[in-house]
Amino acid sequence: MSEEVKSESLSLCAVSMAATREPELICIFGTGDLGRSLGQRLLQTGYRVVYGSRRPHSCGPLPSGTQAMSHEAAAKSASLVFICVHREHYDFLEALAPQLQGKVLVDVSNNLKKNLYPEANAEYLQRLIPEAHVVKAFNTLSAWALQNGPSDASRQVYLCGNGAEAKQTVEETATKLGFTIVDRGSLSAARELEDFPLQLFPQWRLPMYLPIGLTAAFFFYLVMRDVVYAYVTQGKDVSFRIMISIANKVFPIVSLILLSLCYLPGVIAAFLQLYRGTKYKRFPDWLDHWMLCRKQLGLLALALASLHVLYTLIIPIRYYVRYRISAITISQIKENKTSVFDTTMAWRTDSYYSMGVLGFGLYLLLGISSLPSVSNALSWREFSFIQSKLGYLTLFFCTFHTYLYGWDKFLHLSAYKWYTPPGYMLSLVVPSVVLVLRLLLFLPCLDRSLTRIRQGWERMDPEDDSKKTLLT
Amino acid sequence: MSEEVKSESLSLCAVSMAATREPELICIFGTGDLGRSLGQRLLQTGYRVVYGSRRPHSCGPLPSGTQAMSHEAAAKSASLVFICVHREHYDFLEALAPQLQGKVLVDVSNNLKKNLYPEANAEYLQRLIPEAHVVKAFNTLSAWALQNGPSDASRQVYLCGNGAEAKQTVEETATKLGFTIVDRGSLSAARELEDFPLQLFPQWRLPMYLPIGLTAAFFFYLVMRDVVYAYVTQGKDVSFRIMISIANKVFPIVSLILLSLCYLPGVIAAFLQLYRGTKYKRFPDWLDHWMLCRKQLGLLALALASLHVLYTLIIPIRYYVRYRISAITISQIKENKTSVFDTTMAWRTDSYYSMGVLGFGLYLLLGISSLPSVSNALSWREFSFIQSKLGYLTLFFCTFHTYLYGWDKFLHLSAYKWYTPPGYMLSLVVPSVVLVLRLLLFLPCLDRSLTRIRQGWERMDPEDDSKKTLLT
Amino acid sequence: MSEEVKSESLSLCAVSMAATREPELICIFGTGDLGRSLGQRLLQTGYRVVYGSRRPHSCGPLPSGTQAMSHEAAAKSASLVFICVHREHYDFLEALAPQLQGKVLVDVSNNLKKNLYPEANAEYLQRLIPEAHVVKAFNTLSAWALQNGPSDASRQVYLCGNGAEAKQTVEETATKLGFTIVDRGSLSAARELEDFPLQLFPQWRLPMYLPIGLTAAFFFYLVMRDVVYAYVTQGKDVSFRIMISIANKVFPIVSLILLSLCYLPGVIAAFLQLYRGTKYKRFPDWLDHWMLCRKQLGLLALALASLHVLYTLIIPIRYYVRYRISAITISQIKENKTSVFDTTMAWRTDSYYSMGVLGFGLYLLLGISSLPSVSNALSWREFSFIQSKLGYLTLFFCTFHTYLYGWDKFLHLSAYKWYTPPGYMLSLVVPSVVLVLRLLLFLPCLDRSLTRIRQGWERMDPEDDSKKTLLT
Repeated sequence: MSEEVKSESLSLCAVSMAATREPELICIFGTGDLGRSLGQRLLQTGYRVVYGSRRPHSCGPLPSGTQAMSHEAAAKSASLVFICVHREHYDFLEALAPQLQGKVLVDVSNNLKKNLYPEANAEYLQRLIPEAHVVKAFNTLSAWALQNGPSDASRQVYLCGNGAEAKQTVEETATKLGFTIVDRGSLSAARELEDFPLQLFPQWRLPMYLPIGLTAAFFFYLVMRDVVYAYVTQGKDVSFRIMISIANKVFPIVSLILLSLCYLPGVIAAFLQLYRGTKYKRFPDWLDHWMLCRKQLGLLALALASLHVLYTLIIPIRYYVRYRISAITISQIKENKTSVFDTTMAWRTDSYYSMGVLGFGLYLLLGISSLPSVSNALSWREFSFIQSKLGYLTLFFCTFHTYLYGWDKFLHLSAYKWYTPPGYMLSLVVPSVVLVLRLLLFLPCLDRSLTRIRQGWERMDPEDDSKKTLLT
Repeated sequence: MSEEVKSESLSLCAVSMAATREPELICIFGTGDLGRSLGQRLLQTGYRVVYGSRRPHSCGPLPSGTQAMSHEAAAKSASLVFICVHREHYDFLEALAPQLQGKVLVDVSNNLKKNLYPEANAEYLQRLIPEAHVVKAFNTLSAWALQNGPSDASRQVYLCGNGAEAKQTVEETATKLGFTIVDRGSLSAARELEDFPLQLFPQWRLPMYLPIGLTAAFFFYLVMRDVVYAYVTQGKDVSFRIMISIANKVFPIVSLILLSLCYLPGVIAAFLQLYRGTKYKRFPDWLDHWMLCRKQLGLLALALASLHVLYTLIIPIRYYVRYRISAITISQIKENKTSVFDTTMAWRTDSYYSMGVLGFGLYLLLGISSLPSVSNALSWREFSFIQSKLGYLTLFFCTFHTYLYGWDKFLHLSAYKWYTPPGYMLSLVVPSVVLVLRLLLFLPCLDRSLTRIRQGWERMDPEDDSKKTLLT
Repeated sequence: MSEEVKSESLSLCAVSMAATREPELICIFGTGDLGRSLGQRLLQTGYRVVYGSRRPHSCGPLPSGTQAMSHEAAAKSASLVFICVHREHYDFLEALAPQLQGKVLVDVSNNLKKNLYPEANAEYLQRLIPEAHVVKAFNTLSAWALQNGPSDASRQVYLCGNGAEAKQTVEETATKLGFTIVDRGSLSAARELEDFPLQLFPQWRLPMYLPIGLTAAFFFYLVMRDVVYAYVTQGKDVSFRIMISIANKVFPIVSLILLSLCYLPGVIAAFLQLYRGTKYKRFPDWLDHWMLCRKQLGLLALALASLHVLYTLIIPIRYYVRYRISAITISQIKENKTSVFDTTMAWRTDSYYSMGVLGFGLYLLLGISSLPSVSNALSWREFSFIQSKLGYLTLFFCTFHTYLYGWDKFLHLSAYKWYTPPGYMLSLVVPSVVLVLRLLLFLPCLDRSLTRIRQGWERMDPEDDSKKTLLT
């Protein structure tokens, strides 16, 4: 998607800027997509643009209004130079070191893969031309965003560099182009900026495997129990249950397990601290990694819970369900018996649904508070109130919902087809453990110890009292 | 809504600031709503405030604690001057040029309409008093926000101006008032800032007409086919179907068409590039405009899809549906025949619902990733992964959902009332075309050509190899 | 949750930074949680860190790579000093005044309660050491965020201080640590920053009491009317209705009342201005407070409306409902009578559901536009268009939905159990009043007066015409 759009409103800007003073000259090395887009946009915003090229007279189509020059002439011409060339071709810049001395070089380059080179492109450039002020910027934007100006998805320009003045210059240019600056500090952050456009949900990789694996396992387990069992023992073909009935068992099961896995590491950490009697020892690595992906686990749990809700709500319009209900009514009439209204059943099912609705409501609230703009507006105390207090309440509602679903099924032998427990029982193991452990932590003796440990107290270490007097 | 609220917590601020040093003096021209609100807020934050007025002794009620002066005295008094006067009355300022020399003038004015004047108010002001440093700021805030301090909806103060020092001064004041600064560059951006408060969803105009037109057309079409046809041929009054049954056909039809229209321009652009053999030619204007409103089209499609989901889920509690189901059961008993359970039907309808649920789930994901704060947190690669890969998956699910809905209806003559095709068939045309074209682009020959073109290769242009060596 | 994570990617940073120049030295007072976390993070980012301690040789475990020094030596060593000590222990700093002269002191402290001390900790620190440049910063972050680097929930560092250069120094350090700076102005804002981590939804307190009180009241009222009445007069136990049937009456009732209470103060304000004939008089305090919590009221109304939707959609899968429908069908067959299809009934119920769906759709739109990132992207005119125009439309849809629900029930004596009106009637009072008053304001005579008043016109005050010529 690389189109040439000339916004008329912007050329107006250019005119009015030109009216007040001679527009600034900017030099661009590289006539590829990015170089062209950048040049076009700079031109529209009122700058004069010059391209540096090995063969200035045959360097292909450039934005009209710009001109091509030899490398040396171009480097000399402007105090702000954009480097839109692949890192492999940086060597020609070394020869231009005299011309580039004291100039601000903006490294816009990206690599095709991570960790291709030992140092970041911008740091390499700085090493090549030590006399110039290298700033890494604009590389996180697409050519499309550079050409069409900032849109919602790409208003921010990340930037880093060692010289404060050089950064200031780049910041002013970016602001004129309509972008917002996010300063990332010194040039040592360049690698981070260069890795950014290459990343594809790095924090979601690990938390994604778990629900995928669990979903596959439970799907297989329930197909065996529900479809294959019916076919083997009764010869009935109920394979159509795969699409909704089984999906609507797998999703809530995996969702509940994922939700409880969000709260398990916190409980483990508390007991570990109690056991060790101090909070100043590092947790094992697996626990740290686990804690850092709780948000992702929670959001995936919410997605599966939402699917569960939708699948549940379409139950009454399913052909199978309507057929069954009608068949039951007809058989009641034919056999001339009337079923008696069962108040316990009404209480139980209504409570079951009610717990589910309230749990899902809280679930949604947790999800909304995870939106970056919402969580930014919350203080740390508010955020942890929602994610911890309301989170445990959600877990409790959802676990209770599942217990009410099971009710007394565990008493009936027929529930254990092929001696396997129903899926919902398996889903209750982890959340029950989490809730019981959490309740244990409310015991006064444990609660008091943990509070003291978290305030800096250490068991068997009575000599140090400075800790208690200092901020914790 | 213009109330005088004196926040007590803020007057505390004022006191503590006053304790450290003599508060700064600020002059305001204009005793209208905006001028008063601004003065009040400045006063609360610890500034001293002076109003410039033609008749200082009879200029109406001013915030208590401020005083009115003659124009000349006021202009002389402070180094920071807020101009809260309509542009039509700027001429009196020209006479004050000597007093305003070297001062920072903050132009807060707005116009009643766009394009009333050839130049922006702030630029006009700068021309009137060339010796002053004009900064455009605060005009995007309401008087309400100025008086009550920043709230969620209006925390940002957009600002532009030519002098860096003048901007710095204004920025400090705005920061003290609790606002966040967004620097928009030089004074040439003033027109943009002045147009901002006047705009009412300018990017939504065009994309709104389409769904409104489509909804009206399909509504008329389906009322004719469903209601009028039944009345004319069978004399039955089924007009009540308008409220839910027909609405629930129109919404999904329009939603599916809108969703496919989000992806059609991308496919057209790809084929255009293949045909032209280059990406360095401008797309036609209509294609550019179309591409720029894909986000709006997608969000409108999501809104209609959500209505479709809600309308579908209330089906089983409708009086009409309950009546029909009951009537069918009764007639089955009376005629003493039992309908046989149809496994194909169960598979088909369950798949149909399942596709719908999954498609809507992905739809929601696309919508959430369009929230500004979420899309800002995504890298370009992640954003395009969601909007393109997951977007096509959504389109596929929804199209498949509609095909399953139709099933073999197209074989039955009775579906073509008055020789017109059912609505769902019409809705399938565009998405099917988009999906087929997208699949064609997966053909190795086309895929390879397109990739080369997008990397900068041009057909019949073998002389230039610099392109391949430079960044694309 | 205080774990020691050593991010390997960050230590890379440290190495590359060290390669270019000698890393800066930073001094931290306080070896508590916060002090350690901060030190660790600074170390990882490439700084050298020194701790000031009363007993440098026995101050407990410090991050490896840092060293402890005596107070004097530490204070002398670095130009940037972080104070991570409780305010109660600040007095030892007074003795260090000579060593701390001219240095930048970052006050990171927080208190355990609000308003414990007459002045903010940072202001107290500044008073103790007047020669130093005190900056308040980092106190809004948790130790967890300081140690693990910025995450979504805590990327922003709020900062205030009197010296621009001192703030600049702290800003650079924070940027290197990966945080974004939000400047809050002079040191007088320190109290606000110190109160921030202690706050727990202060703006939600008042608006929360209302729905809780209303929900409790209506719950009691409806349990009396529906459950107790049935038990007393007919001896039937329908207590199971509490879980869903009654909840699904209470939620929409409270939601509608809350929604109308969002719009009532605006209408009251308009009539007050009409009555007074001016907009330059303060509104009563209760009205101001009411207006400031409209957003919270609206979001709570949306939450209750969402619960109402979920509770409504699960109606058809309830045991009780299925039993009733089946029982009705069976009784119809046994009595051999057929109910006639009632077109009015179909129209009415379908309209009723349709209004509800559309109202809820608009409700959601209002909610989405309240998300900080969405409302920030809207101009003031757009925001008020959504919240006012679409808001009244939502209120109208929801009120009409309720009227359709009631229909002609008010005519039947049986609806007034124990001479009390049904709940839905009570819920209609406030919204009806709001809508009628709003319609009155559309009357030309009132509309014209109000517009003039809002443009600055005052009744019986003809002498002042400057108002009309100035910006309003």
